[in-house]
Amino acid sequence: MIYLDNAATTRPMKSAIQDAEGALNELYFNPSASYAGGIQTHGEIGRAREEILSLVGGTENFGLIFTSCGTEADNQAMFGSVKRGNLVVSGGEHAAVYECAKELKNRGLEVRIAPLNRDGSVDRDALLRLVDEKTALVSVIHVNNETGAVNPVGRIAEQVKEKNARALFMSDGVQAFGKIPFRLTKHIDFYTLSAHKIGAPKGIGALIVKKGVKAEAYLYGGGQESGKRSGTENVFGILAFASAAKRKFSTLKEDGERILSYRERLFEKLDKDLFVRLSPENGTPYILTVSAKGLRGETLVRMLSDRGVYAGKGSACSSKKPFSRVIEACGVERELLDGVLRFSFSPENSEAEIDEAAEIVNRTAKELYGRIR
Amino acid sequence: MIYLDNAATTRPMKSAIQDAEGALNELYFNPSASYAGGIQTHGEIGRAREEILSLVGGTENFGLIFTSCGTEADNQAMFGSVKRGNLVVSGGEHAAVYECAKELKNRGLEVRIAPLNRDGSVDRDALLRLVDEKTALVSVIHVNNETGAVNPVGRIAEQVKEKNARALFMSDGVQAFGKIPFRLTKHIDFYTLSAHKIGAPKGIGALIVKKGVKAEAYLYGGGQESGKRSGTENVFGILAFASAAKRKFSTLKEDGERILSYRERLFEKLDKDLFVRLSPENGTPYILTVSAKGLRGETLVRMLSDRGVYAGKGSACSSKKPFSRVIEACGVERELLDGVLRFSFSPENSEAEIDEAAEIVNRTAKELYGRIR
Repeated sequence: MIYLDNAATTRPMKSAIQDAEGALNELYFNPSASYAGGIQTHGEIGRAREEILSLVGGTENFGLIFTSCGTEADNQAMFGSVKRGNLVVSGGEHAAVYECAKELKNRGLEVRIAPLNRDGSVDRDALLRLVDEKTALVSVIHVNNETGAVNPVGRIAEQVKEKNARALFMSDGVQAFGKIPFRLTKHIDFYTLSAHKIGAPKGIGALIVKKGVKAEAYLYGGGQESGKRSGTENVFGILAFASAAKRKFSTLKEDGERILSYRERLFEKLDKDLFVRLSPENGTPYILTVSAKGLRGETLVRMLSDRGVYAGKGSACSSKKPFSRVIEACGVERELLDGVLRFSFSPENSEAEIDEAAEIVNRTAKELYGRIR
Repeated sequence: MIYLDNAATTRPMKSAIQDAEGALNELYFNPSASYAGGIQTHGEIGRAREEILSLVGGTENFGLIFTSCGTEADNQAMFGSVKRGNLVVSGGEHAAVYECAKELKNRGLEVRIAPLNRDGSVDRDALLRLVDEKTALVSVIHVNNETGAVNPVGRIAEQVKEKNARALFMSDGVQAFGKIPFRLTKHIDFYTLSAHKIGAPKGIGALIVKKGVKAEAYLYGGGQESGKRSGTENVFGILAFASAAKRKFSTLKEDGERILSYRERLFEKLDKDLFVRLSPENGTPYILTVSAKGLRGETLVRMLSDRGVYAGKGSACSSKKPFSRVIEACGVERELLDGVLRFSFSPENSEAEIDEAAEIVNRTAKELYGRIR
């Protein structure tokens, strides 16, 4: 099996599980308990928090709240920071941000959607035109999870603040963290992470918050995470997250170079009569999205899986819809919308797998064309 | 080390970890993915859901939403069901319910707190008097996590519905599930669970919802859990939860009998000049709460941990407060409020541990008395 759906989720690293499994065996105490084991467990959470923050230069000026997933982090940032005014979000936001914006709209807030460029990055000038003195929050996804386009969120945040210094800026960093170089800047107020996209288990994420920015609690209860996120902490997940993050960052550059070569190698080998490229060349190395003209991505994904290649059709998280809202917002032609196929890589992939996958993908698409004609 | 803080959290069962670890190794796919591995993973979640529901007789008339913890389940039930009218909650609610009620009060809803009996159970007549035609939701914790008192929630729910058939009834079942016999009834609308209290890892819980009852989503995004809880599913946690629950229920009766004998044996051996019992005899076998007159529970907990006994001082989740709101609501005298000590058991404990713990607890309390006199 050739697994090329690493943007949907990754296989947990053995090292991350090993580093965390103490939390399942010896260090299983409640981190709120005041005896030695509880205090030690609490300390481990603190160390993990600092470790993750340090990887993006956030130690001094940012705090980090562990959540149960990237979605929860996005929900907390959105619902915890916007009470009035308008909300500006890019049309490329993940459902975890987009659906919150829709809900805020239901509750009476004005939501302004910034258009996308063809590659999935946000049209920056158009976004900035939507920001005014009543803008409470701007959200721009860091790496578009469907096309791999990278938004320069540090620079965008700065420009947003030039227009309205009181507007908050958030970015969903789920597909960026540990995969492309990045440092937090003073213009970024919220940055959200998910552990299972970088080799840790599912069920853990984080919301990074600039110090001094009010991030209201979203889950109320026992007051864990300094009152910002109640609920007994997922210690196993937290420790695995920190371990996987540390490892990812330690090889970020060389992994990125190798994976970039995979991305281009795969595209080069794909039959250009069958596939149109949607991902930009300057996007994340980790994602190659194409469209098979006139075919259904859904069908292709299933046929490919029968032949041992696991690929995605974009966002696994919005797989209930017929075609992608985000790809549509890129201005991609109607006949290409159904045939979207996303290949996403991990350092565990090999060049041989890429070559084999290309061959299978070409063969499968040809066969499917044959069937429908 | 003698671990007697199992109501705060339990050591994960080896069998539950083993049954779930496939989710970290082979079955690591995104459950939303449409290829074979994704569908299989999704199927495993469905099986776990049905398994847990079947243990409390909920297969036919209830649904179950996996959440990241009991706290999230409580938050979803509270915030997702109450928009107007009044809210009646017992004074014995866990912080995960109580703090939501406080927040709903901040948002303008009327919150009515029902008084407690001395043992921590709710004063049922008083509760029912608070319910009127404008009551939107009534919440009564099943097993009081600080005293172990059991509220007959099936019967209370029925009486609530007699007064107002449209009022919703919820119960936090975190300390009850897998520990005392229980079947869901048609009068219960929401019932919340936490996995780490019964031998599964931290980071997973569930909200059981009666079919036909509107439980709004609390996390918005990709639409997982039939749109009721977005965020990639914690598959490892879910499978471990189902495994641990199945095992707990399979030995519920004999475990309960053995643990009841521990509870009584421990109390019998405690020095009655030093300790006053707060837990009722007809409460859960799993909790024995006492108070050391004139001592500070906090100090005792720390001294005991130095001597190898891990006990709690009540709710680990509200450990930031000087003394317990719940114990105070029981009408316990002021001089007993500070000295609360909670012993909570698991089938992993042995009789020899109980005897040794009793000796250490008596000796430590005597020593502390000596110091402060």
